[in-house]
Amino acid sequence: MAFEDMLPIGASIASMAVAAGLAGWVGRQHSGTEKMMSISSAVRTGAMAFLRREFKIVIPVAVALAVIIGFASGFSNGAAFAVGAALSGLAGLIALRITVKAAVRAAQATSKGLGPAFAAAFRGGATVGLSVPAMALIAITVLFFVFPDPLTIAGVGIGASLIALFIRAGGGIFTKAADLGADLVGKVEAGIPEDDPRNPATIADNVGDNVGDAAGMGSDVYESYIVTILAAMLLGALIVPTSLQAIGGDRFALTTLPIIGIEVNPLVIYPMLIGASGLIASIIGAMTITSRKISDPMKPLDIAFMVSAAIAIALNFFFTTSFLGYNVLSYALFATTVVGVILVPVIQRITDYYTNYKYKPVKEISDSTKWGYASNTLAGIIMGMQSTGPFMLSIVVVLGISYGITFGITQDPLVGIYGTAMAAMAMLSLAGIVLCIDAFGPISDNAGGIVEMTGMGEENRAITDKIDAAGNTTKAITKGFAIASAGLAALAMIQAFQHEADKIFPAMTFEYSLSDVGLVIGLLIGGLIPFFVTSQLIAGVSRSASKMVDEVRRQFKEIPGILDGKATPDYAKCVDIATGASLRELWKPALVTVAAPIITGILLGPTAVAGVLMGAVVSGLFLAYHLANSGGAWDNAKKYIEMQGKKKTEAHAVAVVGDLIGDPYKDTAGPALNTVIKLLNTVAIVFVPVFIAILAL
Amino acid sequence: MAFEDMLPIGASIASMAVAAGLAGWVGRQHSGTEKMMSISSAVRTGAMAFLRREFKIVIPVAVALAVIIGFASGFSNGAAFAVGAALSGLAGLIALRITVKAAVRAAQATSKGLGPAFAAAFRGGATVGLSVPAMALIAITVLFFVFPDPLTIAGVGIGASLIALFIRAGGGIFTKAADLGADLVGKVEAGIPEDDPRNPATIADNVGDNVGDAAGMGSDVYESYIVTILAAMLLGALIVPTSLQAIGGDRFALTTLPIIGIEVNPLVIYPMLIGASGLIASIIGAMTITSRKISDPMKPLDIAFMVSAAIAIALNFFFTTSFLGYNVLSYALFATTVVGVILVPVIQRITDYYTNYKYKPVKEISDSTKWGYASNTLAGIIMGMQSTGPFMLSIVVVLGISYGITFGITQDPLVGIYGTAMAAMAMLSLAGIVLCIDAFGPISDNAGGIVEMTGMGEENRAITDKIDAAGNTTKAITKGFAIASAGLAALAMIQAFQHEADKIFPAMTFEYSLSDVGLVIGLLIGGLIPFFVTSQLIAGVSRSASKMVDEVRRQFKEIPGILDGKATPDYAKCVDIATGASLRELWKPALVTVAAPIITGILLGPTAVAGVLMGAVVSGLFLAYHLANSGGAWDNAKKYIEMQGKKKTEAHAVAVVGDLIGDPYKDTAGPALNTVIKLLNTVAIVFVPVFIAILAL
Repeated sequence: MAFEDMLPIGASIASMAVAAGLAGWVGRQHSGTEKMMSISSAVRTGAMAFLRREFKIVIPVAVALAVIIGFASGFSNGAAFAVGAALSGLAGLIALRITVKAAVRAAQATSKGLGPAFAAAFRGGATVGLSVPAMALIAITVLFFVFPDPLTIAGVGIGASLIALFIRAGGGIFTKAADLGADLVGKVEAGIPEDDPRNPATIADNVGDNVGDAAGMGSDVYESYIVTILAAMLLGALIVPTSLQAIGGDRFALTTLPIIGIEVNPLVIYPMLIGASGLIASIIGAMTITSRKISDPMKPLDIAFMVSAAIAIALNFFFTTSFLGYNVLSYALFATTVVGVILVPVIQRITDYYTNYKYKPVKEISDSTKWGYASNTLAGIIMGMQSTGPFMLSIVVVLGISYGITFGITQDPLVGIYGTAMAAMAMLSLAGIVLCIDAFGPISDNAGGIVEMTGMGEENRAITDKIDAAGNTTKAITKGFAIASAGLAALAMIQAFQHEADKIFPAMTFEYSLSDVGLVIGLLIGGLIPFFVTSQLIAGVSRSASKMVDEVRRQFKEIPGILDGKATPDYAKCVDIATGASLRELWKPALVTVAAPIITGILLGPTAVAGVLMGAVVSGLFLAYHLANSGGAWDNAKKYIEMQGKKKTEAHAVAVVGDLIGDPYKDTAGPALNTVIKLLNTVAIVFVPVFIAILAL
Repeated sequence: MAFEDMLPIGASIASMAVAAGLAGWVGRQHSGTEKMMSISSAVRTGAMAFLRREFKIVIPVAVALAVIIGFASGFSNGAAFAVGAALSGLAGLIALRITVKAAVRAAQATSKGLGPAFAAAFRGGATVGLSVPAMALIAITVLFFVFPDPLTIAGVGIGASLIALFIRAGGGIFTKAADLGADLVGKVEAGIPEDDPRNPATIADNVGDNVGDAAGMGSDVYESYIVTILAAMLLGALIVPTSLQAIGGDRFALTTLPIIGIEVNPLVIYPMLIGASGLIASIIGAMTITSRKISDPMKPLDIAFMVSAAIAIALNFFFTTSFLGYNVLSYALFATTVVGVILVPVIQRITDYYTNYKYKPVKEISDSTKWGYASNTLAGIIMGMQSTGPFMLSIVVVLGISYGITFGITQDPLVGIYGTAMAAMAMLSLAGIVLCIDAFGPISDNAGGIVEMTGMGEENRAITDKIDAAGNTTKAITKGFAIASAGLAALAMIQAFQHEADKIFPAMTFEYSLSDVGLVIGLLIGGLIPFFVTSQLIAGVSRSASKMVDEVRRQFKEIPGILDGKATPDYAKCVDIATGASLRELWKPALVTVAAPIITGILLGPTAVAGVLMGAVVSGLFLAYHLANSGGAWDNAKKYIEMQGKKKTEAHAVAVVGDLIGDPYKDTAGPALNTVIKLLNTVAIVFVPVFIAILAL
């Protein structure tokens, strides 16, 4: 290649340009009646109020952290932190604005049929899907060209993680508090249907869908992307280039980038090229979705993904061989990217099997309702736990293969580890198309809400229901992708952490050995963190929901005429309560996640920190996947019963309870664990110099 | 000392003699009316039928395993396996026979008042409590004197673990299947009270209490005891005696045992002495419980424990200084045993706080019932997860202190690890008194059943209820003890495993480093096992309970006159169903637990096996403690509501569902994880030579 340094930047810009084009297309669609616009604008106002209040708290914290990080590990890290945080916030902002805009247009497009409505929702989602990984890739690339040592820009990871935690976990509390509040009083006590404009919490509920599902998933995947590419670059930088020349030839020697002109280790650039490949593949895949007539939205989505995956594999081969030459080592690295790409559909299938009512697990859960509440609860928990088996075994197989191939050829464990990081990077490179397929879900969910609230016809609601059903499926499988990629990102970062600590202070070799009591203590502390965070967040949802319930009851009582539709409820107050609650419930888990690696590192040294990071992955990955799938399975068991026309039965009442239990599982605690696992790692790697300095005292 | 080799044997024999004396005392008590005896004999027949059928399957497996182990790692290991298994089975048998005998006598003693009834229940329990650890200690001591290398007798651990798994987890499935079956049809459908003799599953329910709670807990603690003392001895044997002489003097050199005459490393004998100290302390503590008048059974139990703990500390000091002299190293080892003893009441207090209705967590769960089923379920899950925090932090502190003291003085990490194993050993040394305090619980539960079934008076039932309430508290806190000791036992064994692998094959040094992908894969596989086992066992309970429900319904329909009390139900058939179900559901988890370390070791070597062991501890300890405490808290939240006289309310109905969810949590899956964590370790250590042989190929 003659422009490898410009390829990632070019692909990112192209991706953002396509995203902008799609956003423009969405904007040009008919925005519906005045009533629709007024609801849409209430949701937008609510969403912006949430973000504004989050940012008001997060920005001072972020500035303080930028200064601390700057002092602790250099100016470039502080700056990188700021870039990572700012872009993460921007990603959340874009996601919120476009989903609100697309929702009302998709609702309007229902009058033109399924195809156009689906296209409006999908293209709104694709704006998020294509811009988020592009921003991550361009940020890393530009930062690296300015500070050409990946360790000096690792702060970008903390920035991404911190904001992701606030948006993902904060959004998770927000959405479930609003949802439960709306349901418990509105549906259960007042007996008004879901999404009824008379319900004061209904706007908050719609805002929550956007905040939790659209912005939250976007910032989660943005963060995984940043962490994974950083880890791969850090590991690449640790490999001595000359050591590979005997096998791979001169392409593996230090090389001068053709346009930027700096001298780099090619293994540091390689992850960026794979990222570019995935972005290009995602653009093409997203383009296959048009306004044409369709009967089932899942089919075009499947095709879009398959197109992207196939193109990614082809481009990976082309970029790998052009950049690293035709040799056995280059083929081996290409093979690791193929394994990583294949992992995406494998995880999607496993997740689908455990959460889709087409298959045995959800059918069994739905069947268990006849035995009552306890059986249904236990059935959901059992299935969620069972699903961790095939999930983890496929991750283990990917680790084994990618390590085996690269280590086998070089006999260098570090190259083997780099191989596992490249498999993770290849998986993440498909984040674009995966996010596209996910992000239309909350849009169609909101579109359905608008259709309901404005009293459009049954046939319009049928269309949004159909898109929404597809959205629920893709939402569940995307959670699987997000968890697997968080796990692989963390595993890669743990390796980078260990090697960096060794490199900074070669006088002291750390063994990270299980014979070391510090490591064992670290593993136990790390294993505890996901359980602590889960219990805090679920408790937070309960507390917040009860506040919301009180407020909705108060409004029904104190504002006369709400239930007759004569008075407008105070929507903003409900949004405010959900926002405040989410911030209040977040600080403890956030503080523990940031403080745990720092305190452990200061008291017990880097070995114990590695234990904390690994322990959190070991317990956190299982817990996250269990929570996500139990929640998804309960939800769909309920839908399955509804589809059989048993909406007023005892079985349905039981299934509704299962869904209520699953709500904070799948939408609050589960997703937050992804971010926690990664945030621990990014904090740890940035503070490596501090731990070493203290040890050297 | 002049008889240190005879001390453990002497203490064990004394303990067993006291146990036999107590059993004799129990036997001499009035055994009640003919009707009481007939119920008691039905329960005994059922319990024996369970054991007979378990043994019919387990014995051939055990014989085959003994041969395999004999071939894989020597005759002595095969023989030790047989001893460990046989004694474990014997412990189960003793526990079952004495609890059945004591229950009917405690029921009869209710006519004499609370004091005598409590004494009958306690002394029955103390028979188990004092004989089980004594059998473990004498088995280890005698085996070691015959084969004076701890590695050659490590098979005793597998024997103990395997039988413990069958009794503990099999019993856990049995008891919950019977319980649920009895409740769902008898209480809910037919509307007859609990423990009503017209219910065909009621005998199975009573058998289940004995099998799951009495025999199960006994074999669990027996196993922890064996594993811990073995690990401490293995680690002690690895320390080069001369290396400590500069600090500790000649007492740390190889020494010839005064009576047996063999030459040993004193650090191998030391754990046995601490075991003897705990046994003596337990005997004295148990003696403080008499038939005198009491008002609250918890008070004498607390006193009994405190007496034992104080005496154990004093004896530990005396034995340590007599055996290892007055020097700083001897004091340091004594200090680790003090830390271990203190951990027992700390864990008990934490567990009590989270499961007793006197404190906030259970009150909050009980309060959450007003929000409905989902809130109550989530509240229980939250509290269980939260409880893992203080639990794990206290274990971490014990590890840190015991390592810090011993490593600080010697600067030898191996001595530090030995220090942590000694803290664990000191904790386990109190198993005698802890089991005494636990084992009267199922006896009083059964006594209550007999009082109910034979239609004795209200005042008799009030007495058994009072003892039963204390039993529920001690049952919950003993679970905390069992989980913590399983964790410490496993952690000690993991260290022993690593050092043994290194020792056997010094040509190849294993690093057990987190940079090793094999170790990482091992950690992930290990982390998976507890989730897999939990989902299998809870699913197993559901399946078995539905079989039981079918059978009870069938009997009500096909045997006329049952509900009028004119015909006797077919109790034996229900016992048979529960037994068959428990065996059928057990083989998968058992197979995975035994096979996982062996297959990992053969394919990926000892480093990955260490990862499996550690991963299982990291996820398993949290899961086990969460399951136990969530279950206990739901149970007591229900009791709290009942105590407030709200038995027919909506809140109570909600709380009953929480309790039903918690049943397999606390009585099946949670306890089984203890055994799984340890069984993995004992299998791994015995197969070390095989892994090494394959690596050396």
